[in-house]
Amino acid sequence: MSLRFLGNSLKINHVYIKSSGTVCGPLEHQGPLGACFDKSIQDYHYGEKSFEKAERKMLRDALDICLKREHLKYKDIDLYLGSDLMNQITTVHYLARELPRPFIGVYGACSGFALSMATAALFIEAGFMEKVVTMVSSHNATAERQYRYPVEYGAQKRETTTFTATGAVSTLLSSQPQPVRVEALTLGRVIDYSQNDVNDMGRAMAPAAFDTLMNHFQDLKRSFHDYDLVVTGDLSMYGHQILKEMLLRHKVDVVHYNDCGCMLYDLSSQEVFQGGSGCACSALVTMGSLYPQLREKKMKRILVVATGALLSPMMTSQKESIPCVAHAISLEAVE
Amino acid sequence: MSLRFLGNSLKINHVYIKSSGTVCGPLEHQGPLGACFDKSIQDYHYGEKSFEKAERKMLRDALDICLKREHLKYKDIDLYLGSDLMNQITTVHYLARELPRPFIGVYGACSGFALSMATAALFIEAGFMEKVVTMVSSHNATAERQYRYPVEYGAQKRETTTFTATGAVSTLLSSQPQPVRVEALTLGRVIDYSQNDVNDMGRAMAPAAFDTLMNHFQDLKRSFHDYDLVVTGDLSMYGHQILKEMLLRHKVDVVHYNDCGCMLYDLSSQEVFQGGSGCACSALVTMGSLYPQLREKKMKRILVVATGALLSPMMTSQKESIPCVAHAISLEAVE
Repeated sequence: MSLRFLGNSLKINHVYIKSSGTVCGPLEHQGPLGACFDKSIQDYHYGEKSFEKAERKMLRDALDICLKREHLKYKDIDLYLGSDLMNQITTVHYLARELPRPFIGVYGACSGFALSMATAALFIEAGFMEKVVTMVSSHNATAERQYRYPVEYGAQKRETTTFTATGAVSTLLSSQPQPVRVEALTLGRVIDYSQNDVNDMGRAMAPAAFDTLMNHFQDLKRSFHDYDLVVTGDLSMYGHQILKEMLLRHKVDVVHYNDCGCMLYDLSSQEVFQGGSGCACSALVTMGSLYPQLREKKMKRILVVATGALLSPMMTSQKESIPCVAHAISLEAVE
Repeated sequence: MSLRFLGNSLKINHVYIKSSGTVCGPLEHQGPLGACFDKSIQDYHYGEKSFEKAERKMLRDALDICLKREHLKYKDIDLYLGSDLMNQITTVHYLARELPRPFIGVYGACSGFALSMATAALFIEAGFMEKVVTMVSSHNATAERQYRYPVEYGAQKRETTTFTATGAVSTLLSSQPQPVRVEALTLGRVIDYSQNDVNDMGRAMAPAAFDTLMNHFQDLKRSFHDYDLVVTGDLSMYGHQILKEMLLRHKVDVVHYNDCGCMLYDLSSQEVFQGGSGCACSALVTMGSLYPQLREKKMKRILVVATGALLSPMMTSQKESIPCVAHAISLEAVE
């Protein structure tokens, strides 16, 4: 069996999901998937002095839940990989001080979940390691104050904006056979359609999702029909409509497609504007809701295309448009 | 041959350095290694309207030099991997918009060179890809204004501080045999010795370098004597003294050891405080000066231990100490 990439994609043979831990915030708990998550926090401070420390505590909880399920300790893991939205990938790096094993930080904005899962899967598929843990998190209050304004300011939001999900997800990937496996992946290119409205990330990211989807289908000779469900990361309402239009214009038959940003909340009743975003968004939906459905064989195969707007506020102030990326992982129920 | 990691380390069999491109700033050009670099820029703006755009232009130059040497185009590369010091890894991500192939951003502060090289080497060693390009950069004025104060403020510096190197380095790794190869690597753990002086990163990082070095030696049953030269990333004067003391206390025989931060500048005449730092520091020294010596068989094998202080200014303001990391790659002249 060849290990060589086909275009931007690779079929994976020996990588399984062994365990996971999901922690969500208050709004995510009240949403339609609220009952799916292992734990929820009641307030954004979570007993800590700062939102940043609360985010880290959530991520530690997610990691501990993930490992305890399999009676594993921090030292039993070969490598930790993590990603979050903070400058310097602060949440995962400051948590990694507590981990006695090597750590790699990757950054892909909200695509961090798929990026860290894909990288971990590649290391296991190669045979380098047996157990790799991925960790991703986002927190509405930490992201808002870094990228826009502190939530406490009560700044008026544009209708096109998305709502950064609060949550943390840890996933243990392993070479040991389990009911669900990582079956294929596609690494994304950085795509910039000259969108420069930082209050409309969904539409900025749609072309990156389109590019990765088309490459995935072409590289592996597949279509939407090869999946029981295809979800994009967090294009949310406007963005996922744009993606659908782009696909239809290219004569792609779009079936059973949804967006994690639209699934995490009840958009008709919850005040999240166009829907959810943030590393935790696609991670919570995938590991909290979709992974159990694969385990229970309610679905056979899904494709998760996590999107990220790689914008730098510094570059936005220098009048630059927003680079975006999307990475895809295919998860499959093992026969 | 087993591809399994030994502890935190892996011996690599089929990864070669095919090409490189190095661009340095004015002070680096005036330093003792100035003649080693492919190109130098005369002023920190490099004809651009902002320092950030100048850094990106330098990195594009380094990439173009690297690829042109082998008559390759952007599209001929299987994957690009990059790292820099900017929030959101801005320099590489905004440059990646011009690249028609997949991109992965990794972040390890000043350890970015070794981290991106190690990750790229792993992907090639696995057989996933044939040609992977790594890109790293740092720029004194962009880093200073993000982490401390704009250079133009003329803020007084502490004597313990280091000077962020201005430069950009691109390296093409390939599975095709070449005169120099990546022979082994060790992934680092995140180490925090409760140092919280942001004006003394060298000393903060020394324990991380120590940890990675000791793991490297133990995993591969090696010592300093197995290398013609061991360089640390950018501990600079104070930090590399601390590392030496830690090693001696553990009865390690320290021979032919140096630090990239002390090699890039003439510390007796150039005003760089304790020496150089930044992603470009270890990258410029390694690819500009050491790699050619391996090519010319003046040295047989070297170990590059690139260190990174993963500090977040946000966490520093919340009274947290500085997490650090070091990743190591061993480069060898092929017989």
